[in-house]
Amino acid sequence: MMNTASAHCSLGFTAHFHESLRSSGSNASVIFRCGAEFVRIGLSSSSGASVCSKGCVGQICALPDIDDIFSEKTPTPILDTIESPMHLKNLSHKELKQLADDIRSELSFIRHETQKSVKGSMSVVELTIAIHHVFSAPMDKILWDAGEQTYAHKILTGRRSVMHTLRQKNGISGYTSRSESEFDPFGAGHGCNSISAGLGMAIARDIKGKRERIVAVISNESIMSGQLYEAMSNAGYLDSDMVVILNDSRQSLHSKPEDAPKTPINALSSAFSKLQSSRLFRKFRETAKGLTKKIGKGMYEWAAKVDEYARGMIGPPGSTLFEELGLYYIGPVDGHNIEDLICVLNQVASLDSTGPVLVHVITTEDKETREEKQIGISKKFNQDPYDSDPQPSNRTQTYSDWFGEALTMEAQLDKDIMVVHAGSGMGMDPSLKLFRDRFPDRLFDVGMAEQHAVTFSAGLSCGGLKPFCIIPSTFLQRAYDQVVHDVDRQKIPVRFVIPSAGLVGSDGPTNAGAFDITFMSCLPNMIVMAPSDEVELANMVATASCIDDRPVCFRYPRGAIVKSNTSVCHGVPIEIGKGRVVIEGKDIALLGYGSMVQNCLRAQSLLSELGIYVTVADARFCKPLDIKLVRQLCENHSFLVTVEEGSIGGFGSHVAQFITLDGKLDGSIKWRPIVLPDNYVEQASPMEQLALAGLTGHHIAATALNLLGRTREALLLMC
Amino acid sequence: MMNTASAHCSLGFTAHFHESLRSSGSNASVIFRCGAEFVRIGLSSSSGASVCSKGCVGQICALPDIDDIFSEKTPTPILDTIESPMHLKNLSHKELKQLADDIRSELSFIRHETQKSVKGSMSVVELTIAIHHVFSAPMDKILWDAGEQTYAHKILTGRRSVMHTLRQKNGISGYTSRSESEFDPFGAGHGCNSISAGLGMAIARDIKGKRERIVAVISNESIMSGQLYEAMSNAGYLDSDMVVILNDSRQSLHSKPEDAPKTPINALSSAFSKLQSSRLFRKFRETAKGLTKKIGKGMYEWAAKVDEYARGMIGPPGSTLFEELGLYYIGPVDGHNIEDLICVLNQVASLDSTGPVLVHVITTEDKETREEKQIGISKKFNQDPYDSDPQPSNRTQTYSDWFGEALTMEAQLDKDIMVVHAGSGMGMDPSLKLFRDRFPDRLFDVGMAEQHAVTFSAGLSCGGLKPFCIIPSTFLQRAYDQVVHDVDRQKIPVRFVIPSAGLVGSDGPTNAGAFDITFMSCLPNMIVMAPSDEVELANMVATASCIDDRPVCFRYPRGAIVKSNTSVCHGVPIEIGKGRVVIEGKDIALLGYGSMVQNCLRAQSLLSELGIYVTVADARFCKPLDIKLVRQLCENHSFLVTVEEGSIGGFGSHVAQFITLDGKLDGSIKWRPIVLPDNYVEQASPMEQLALAGLTGHHIAATALNLLGRTREALLLMC
Repeated sequence: MMNTASAHCSLGFTAHFHESLRSSGSNASVIFRCGAEFVRIGLSSSSGASVCSKGCVGQICALPDIDDIFSEKTPTPILDTIESPMHLKNLSHKELKQLADDIRSELSFIRHETQKSVKGSMSVVELTIAIHHVFSAPMDKILWDAGEQTYAHKILTGRRSVMHTLRQKNGISGYTSRSESEFDPFGAGHGCNSISAGLGMAIARDIKGKRERIVAVISNESIMSGQLYEAMSNAGYLDSDMVVILNDSRQSLHSKPEDAPKTPINALSSAFSKLQSSRLFRKFRETAKGLTKKIGKGMYEWAAKVDEYARGMIGPPGSTLFEELGLYYIGPVDGHNIEDLICVLNQVASLDSTGPVLVHVITTEDKETREEKQIGISKKFNQDPYDSDPQPSNRTQTYSDWFGEALTMEAQLDKDIMVVHAGSGMGMDPSLKLFRDRFPDRLFDVGMAEQHAVTFSAGLSCGGLKPFCIIPSTFLQRAYDQVVHDVDRQKIPVRFVIPSAGLVGSDGPTNAGAFDITFMSCLPNMIVMAPSDEVELANMVATASCIDDRPVCFRYPRGAIVKSNTSVCHGVPIEIGKGRVVIEGKDIALLGYGSMVQNCLRAQSLLSELGIYVTVADARFCKPLDIKLVRQLCENHSFLVTVEEGSIGGFGSHVAQFITLDGKLDGSIKWRPIVLPDNYVEQASPMEQLALAGLTGHHIAATALNLLGRTREALLLMC
Repeated sequence: MMNTASAHCSLGFTAHFHESLRSSGSNASVIFRCGAEFVRIGLSSSSGASVCSKGCVGQICALPDIDDIFSEKTPTPILDTIESPMHLKNLSHKELKQLADDIRSELSFIRHETQKSVKGSMSVVELTIAIHHVFSAPMDKILWDAGEQTYAHKILTGRRSVMHTLRQKNGISGYTSRSESEFDPFGAGHGCNSISAGLGMAIARDIKGKRERIVAVISNESIMSGQLYEAMSNAGYLDSDMVVILNDSRQSLHSKPEDAPKTPINALSSAFSKLQSSRLFRKFRETAKGLTKKIGKGMYEWAAKVDEYARGMIGPPGSTLFEELGLYYIGPVDGHNIEDLICVLNQVASLDSTGPVLVHVITTEDKETREEKQIGISKKFNQDPYDSDPQPSNRTQTYSDWFGEALTMEAQLDKDIMVVHAGSGMGMDPSLKLFRDRFPDRLFDVGMAEQHAVTFSAGLSCGGLKPFCIIPSTFLQRAYDQVVHDVDRQKIPVRFVIPSAGLVGSDGPTNAGAFDITFMSCLPNMIVMAPSDEVELANMVATASCIDDRPVCFRYPRGAIVKSNTSVCHGVPIEIGKGRVVIEGKDIALLGYGSMVQNCLRAQSLLSELGIYVTVADARFCKPLDIKLVRQLCENHSFLVTVEEGSIGGFGSHVAQFITLDGKLDGSIKWRPIVLPDNYVEQASPMEQLALAGLTGHHIAATALNLLGRTREALLLMC
């Protein structure tokens, strides 16, 4: 199987690397996208030099043969001695530094073995070591906010030998998981939940009279999300002891990154962080506060202010924000200096009754591995070639790519089209790069602030613009109230685009989009639709653009489009509530919703080989339903099978409610719903997941055979 | 109809005032709750003196005859000249002050006429006047965050003559509403959406090249919600011109209100606010910034800090928080000083390219009306007798009351039971007061921070406690992702209690709980149940307490319990997934979910008068379904009618999916779902709303008659 990964080179092209580039070592091809065009170029792995047909030489040309670097595993002597984080306790600082190098080598190896990005974890190697050196997991609870940053933590907590199964079926999860290890006290994946969960644990500890420490590591992506503020504010109020570590790898605390001066991590700030965290300083501060509290409110306020601003003058921008929310701020600390980290964390850990403390740690994601240091690779090779998951097949274009291009085309014709994007903690969705390059002023990427994104879109719409609000299915859950209250109830035309709808392969249940059909189609004013292929996707972009009197949403899956190597055409609006019959047959009607129409077609093909000719229809709309089409299917068939890659309560339920109220279910037709199973489908390849979920063409065909009483053939089909 | 309102007097009693107290002027009774006991006492309106049977004389005794005060409408000469906010432009400061008095009188009158609380609006009379004096609505967009604070705004914007219909059927909404007035540019109700929506409008204005001003008024309740931070942070980043006014009536910016010194609103701060907002000061600051920007990053940072801290030293605590998020802070301003308000707002309005500005306004909710000043009522009468909506009937106990008592009983037996409460911007749910009084350390009220509340509950559960997380249905929408990702996926035992499920009377569609059955029952690990009456409610509290291996939720409606004057018994756990037949009949089975079982019983009673004897069953569980019960109903009846006060995709859909997969829908039974209609049910009395929704006993009976072909009788029943 060929896999592709994409990287973004400095000239703004998207380069797709075929797996052969990495695995075979032979000549490989690289596909660049220059604007809307795709350019395929040959790339010799021996020289690594290539010239794009447009004449631009990208930094990619300096790419050395990666296989040569990683073909042999680098020795990891210190890491080999670690079987549990307890073993870190007695290591010297020097040994801990060597351990960091070992872990980086191990991460590189895992990256090579699994072809998954490990960038987030590379940046927190020293931090992870320091945390496990100072605290005593699993008694002490270490909570992580971003799954990507936990691989070093997983390596150190007994999961090293199975890390090669990362994000595979029955393998190690890409996120923390309570069921995976006692060292993962809480599951993370959507970001921003660790302080809330940690605070709950801290309160429970206090009530139960226990003494364990709670450490929540948050990332600078999650700092954009509202829940974090809710949690910090409540932590400040409840004043229970816990340590929040802000792993700041991009300093996105600033509202405008370009304005933000690099936070100086110099001797002074290092020394000052140590001072701040020292028991003596804290005691002094407490005493001073206690005294002034007794003296009077005015004095107390004054003392607090002097303290706050004195530290503020030295601390980086952002520090007072945490103090305002009630967390005691310490930092910044160099996140790659193990000695400093241990010193500060030791001080923090030894404090009694501190209340919540925030330790601001600065890390860089470009931290070199030992191998990279040797060959100087990281400086020349900006982008991690393993940064993205491989695509599920050898097709080069995904639904997301198509959407990005279709929307850009649409936006070219209609200057009111705006894009609001949320739900991605890991930067912009690559499919939107084309739009951003073409219309930089018409794209608003608000990061992990889904609630704001939805209401902000409603505001844009009220102001006469046409917002497309793009939020992956699983993250749209975070803005459900805003969809209901700020958009649907007011019937404001916001166009919700829901990528990653359905199962999401190696991202497992954490980021699956199982519930969106159900929770969107119960809303009175919402038009709910789903394209069955990429051409329909472009049509739905055009349709959504036309709908200007109510909200509309459409979902599409992760992964490859149906027909590869086709170029995106401008979409044609579809009549609202109009489905279509794709293949005319008899006895059984397969009514698919969204991408499941393709699986219905596969089932149809399997069944036709057995001499059974079923009808396949593409519902297109869950709401409003094409009642004419549904009636017609009921009248001309004995069985109606609805198929969707979504939970119970969605498309099938809407069809059932209509046909029963229409009297069609009173004996004239038999209805069978095929939906996602009533459990969380674990991580696996997309095809494996569909099989687990019972949503493949084979499953649908077997359902049809069973309905016809041909159970033996149904069984054979599933063997 | 008798209506009751409740007030909380200084000794911690809840007093219920019957409507007769206000409307008849004759002797009335007042019900006090002393602990768990209810005490009814006589109250003579002429003397106003009364002694509680427990011997405690409450402050309530000083209550004068309210009818005497409000019987004649106070003249409002200035207000009478105002037909549009434009008319405020030419009034002198003195006249504007008189106008404030007029509006307060008008609000008192409305309070009297409609028996609805107007407290929130009383506190912002001057602020509303100042905003409409300075800005030019509807061209300028004034967005409010809290519906309760908009009545003065409604009076001034052409709705004065219809204010007596406030929160009634076909009347004025208790919230802002785009469909109600062009002066309401966005609908509010859940709080915390105004900055997001306003920012969208500001960006749209910039793109469209328009010039209107955007003003968002937020309240100190909404400052707890995460969306506000997401919005402020994005506003700081996008730097579009808009004015955010923080109406701070309780100074809840402080993490610990008891620690917070009263913000000094004195001459200095008043003068300083004016200085800050002045064009010159702003210009100077911009120039300084521009200069230092050119000189270099270090200098720029230093200058910004000096500026920030200089103002911080004078400004109140909290100010730097807004500055960190990128809003230019001005304040605090005395919210009852019209001159100061106008001066500051005028300066802000006249600035060019300010970016987002936050004006911190301090108001008090205890602001007296003219009448109160005259008779000194407000000092003696702490609590507004019209503060709560009247109860929907003359029953004294609501489902919420029962829940509060049942939970308190349960908590007495199990010390691990904790309460986490969110979703109320207006303070604690009264039903929880008993619990709080008994177990102050076991209740966590986090205000409008639903996302945090859910994950925090998950943390408590991980720490070995038994959290009951109480969030009204409509606000649970705001934490949906946390329910999915942090609780259900990890199968953590959190007990979700969902009050205000279904229609909510005068709160209309804004706060209706229409979707919770649908969005909760699609979750794989969740147990979803609903009590059919108050005894079942107590049983479900006990059941939820027992379930310790997975999450569970139960919903109950607003309003009165079934049997009044019964005392709460300790609940008995129900077997999971076990429904029950309430009345045995034939032909038709009415399978009710939650409180709709009562309406099924009403239908049964109506039908039995016509000689039709139907079965009524109480499903209790939507998930897991009692499949034995459902099968039995299918086998013994021709028709199965499912009834729920929820949207499509919920209980009925789960039943349908089960019976069709079980083969029962293939001709052996005919299924009819009765659900909430596919539209937002507008505000009205609870009974009117149920009639609008087609969910009364009459509707259910008519459906049954139709199924039996007795359409004429069905029609007669609905006449």
